[in-house]
Amino acid sequence: MSNPVLVEMLRGALVESRHRGALAVVDADGRRVLTLGEVERPIYPRSAVKPLQALPLIESGAADRYGLSAEELALACASHSGEPGHIATAQRMLVRAGLDASALKCGAHWPIHQPSAQALARGGGTATALHNNCSGKHAGFLCTACALDAERGTYIEPAHPVQRAVKAVLENLSGVSIAPEACAIDGCSVPTWALPLDALALAFARFGSGAGVAPERARAAARLRAACAAHPWHVAGTGRFCTEIMQRFGARVYVKTGAEGMFCGALPEQGLGIAIKCDDGAGRAAEVMMAATLARLLGSADRAALEPLLRPTLRNWNGIAVGGLRPTEAF
Amino acid sequence: MSNPVLVEMLRGALVESRHRGALAVVDADGRRVLTLGEVERPIYPRSAVKPLQALPLIESGAADRYGLSAEELALACASHSGEPGHIATAQRMLVRAGLDASALKCGAHWPIHQPSAQALARGGGTATALHNNCSGKHAGFLCTACALDAERGTYIEPAHPVQRAVKAVLENLSGVSIAPEACAIDGCSVPTWALPLDALALAFARFGSGAGVAPERARAAARLRAACAAHPWHVAGTGRFCTEIMQRFGARVYVKTGAEGMFCGALPEQGLGIAIKCDDGAGRAAEVMMAATLARLLGSADRAALEPLLRPTLRNWNGIAVGGLRPTEAF
Repeated sequence: MSNPVLVEMLRGALVESRHRGALAVVDADGRRVLTLGEVERPIYPRSAVKPLQALPLIESGAADRYGLSAEELALACASHSGEPGHIATAQRMLVRAGLDASALKCGAHWPIHQPSAQALARGGGTATALHNNCSGKHAGFLCTACALDAERGTYIEPAHPVQRAVKAVLENLSGVSIAPEACAIDGCSVPTWALPLDALALAFARFGSGAGVAPERARAAARLRAACAAHPWHVAGTGRFCTEIMQRFGARVYVKTGAEGMFCGALPEQGLGIAIKCDDGAGRAAEVMMAATLARLLGSADRAALEPLLRPTLRNWNGIAVGGLRPTEAF
Repeated sequence: MSNPVLVEMLRGALVESRHRGALAVVDADGRRVLTLGEVERPIYPRSAVKPLQALPLIESGAADRYGLSAEELALACASHSGEPGHIATAQRMLVRAGLDASALKCGAHWPIHQPSAQALARGGGTATALHNNCSGKHAGFLCTACALDAERGTYIEPAHPVQRAVKAVLENLSGVSIAPEACAIDGCSVPTWALPLDALALAFARFGSGAGVAPERARAAARLRAACAAHPWHVAGTGRFCTEIMQRFGARVYVKTGAEGMFCGALPEQGLGIAIKCDDGAGRAAEVMMAATLARLLGSADRAALEPLLRPTLRNWNGIAVGGLRPTEAF
């Protein structure tokens, strides 16, 4: 197995580093519109399936019962940067279900957003579970557990009703029955279930279009997509790729990053789903792979808006442009 | 060109990510002891050649003229973590040459060592050029410029006497004449000159053994090696790979990391030099590649000391072991 080089990093006149990867674009009937590399091997989707993990939050009735706002639904689908607005939103979600931050089982890390991390330290604060980029997802899991009247202390376990509901969503939308050995532990301690890229792309084609999906699930998906399109800053944060894409394209393009070079997305108008894995796990390359995939699928009028994300310039500590990333001719 | 997969990252039962790369181990006569992948293509060595960049500091007479200590010489070869002790040492070097931090042209970044970065913010401080991981190297360049009575404001330019001296050292030790187009700008704004991995390995075989090197240069190399072996914390910092290797093996193993997946090293007793490049630029994989190379070259008694670096465990935000890195059978 040798996936193609999809992204190159240049410095001066030479290619300094190379990133291989695979990707699948399929429609809601599972027809392949574009594939590069090996797309049938199971891959952990990590946070790239957060919007699918958030479907039980709506389907269980939790979102309505606790009156979750669109911003809060967007944060349930987010890998957020830990900026003050993200923290406040996560806290509000917990309060709505009568909980506080002590219920979160995601573990603590410092905010991804460096100025926010520095401000936190400057104020004498320290990293908490609220700053974890997954705290919105976990707050959503807790709201779901409360609505289901399930145990709150074990919501991260594979056998818990919330995680079983998530697994059922993934199997339903991807059309794949997940084997027990395809389960691993994610960075925030919930299960991550491995699925082939083509099946993940199918799941996102269905998530994005509602085609071939039961009406209640299609409505839940549309509600999450609308929430993210309306509040793209809540899905990632200042300067982040997912936020910039959804700020530019609104409801026309849905994208979600995941750790270890994962990216999923959907083009609802075209009924297409996208799943990308950078072999080596580099987020910088997975972003360029997603931008190049979108550039191929969108019209020429949209390509100019993608250019800064398609060929990002790399600057050094003095702000000097020393090189950049670019997609290869494989696209 | 397709270099072999040298390192795998596992999560649960599956390989989640893969890192390809190339490496060369040669003796001081240029005989290849071990090569994997393509080793004749020019590669930017980045900070992996810092000890070679520090040779003019001694050869120019600057180290003696300013009475630099062994700790200061080690810091001149370092990509340090910006811990308070590193900052104090860099400041001392500048003071010895009658300068201060305003002379540094490396640019500012926050300390790599996260507790030090947080303490800096907590105290109301901010990132300065002293915290840049290259500040010791730059302080060494400035000392050299002063000893050569050269301009201080332009010491980062390729045409400056300090950088020309560095280039001459690289050409002498590697046996390669560097073409003008092989020059790019490093993260700290000094030139980085591309050299093939086999030539870099030869340069380190000579740096490590002194074989085939003019006596004055061989003495300068031995002095830098001794300084780093005596003060491995000054070469990187708390918990860092280079520091841990040199703490374990002392003068028997010299290793130096560089950005974008570079690693160089030497086994002085065996007269061998090592140069490694992870194709995708991942430092985590370049470290495992170096550990696996050392495990192959050192005796079985030394292998146990390498084990934690050879197969590092990956833990999530709750400290749960979720996977790990391992070298492939290519080694």
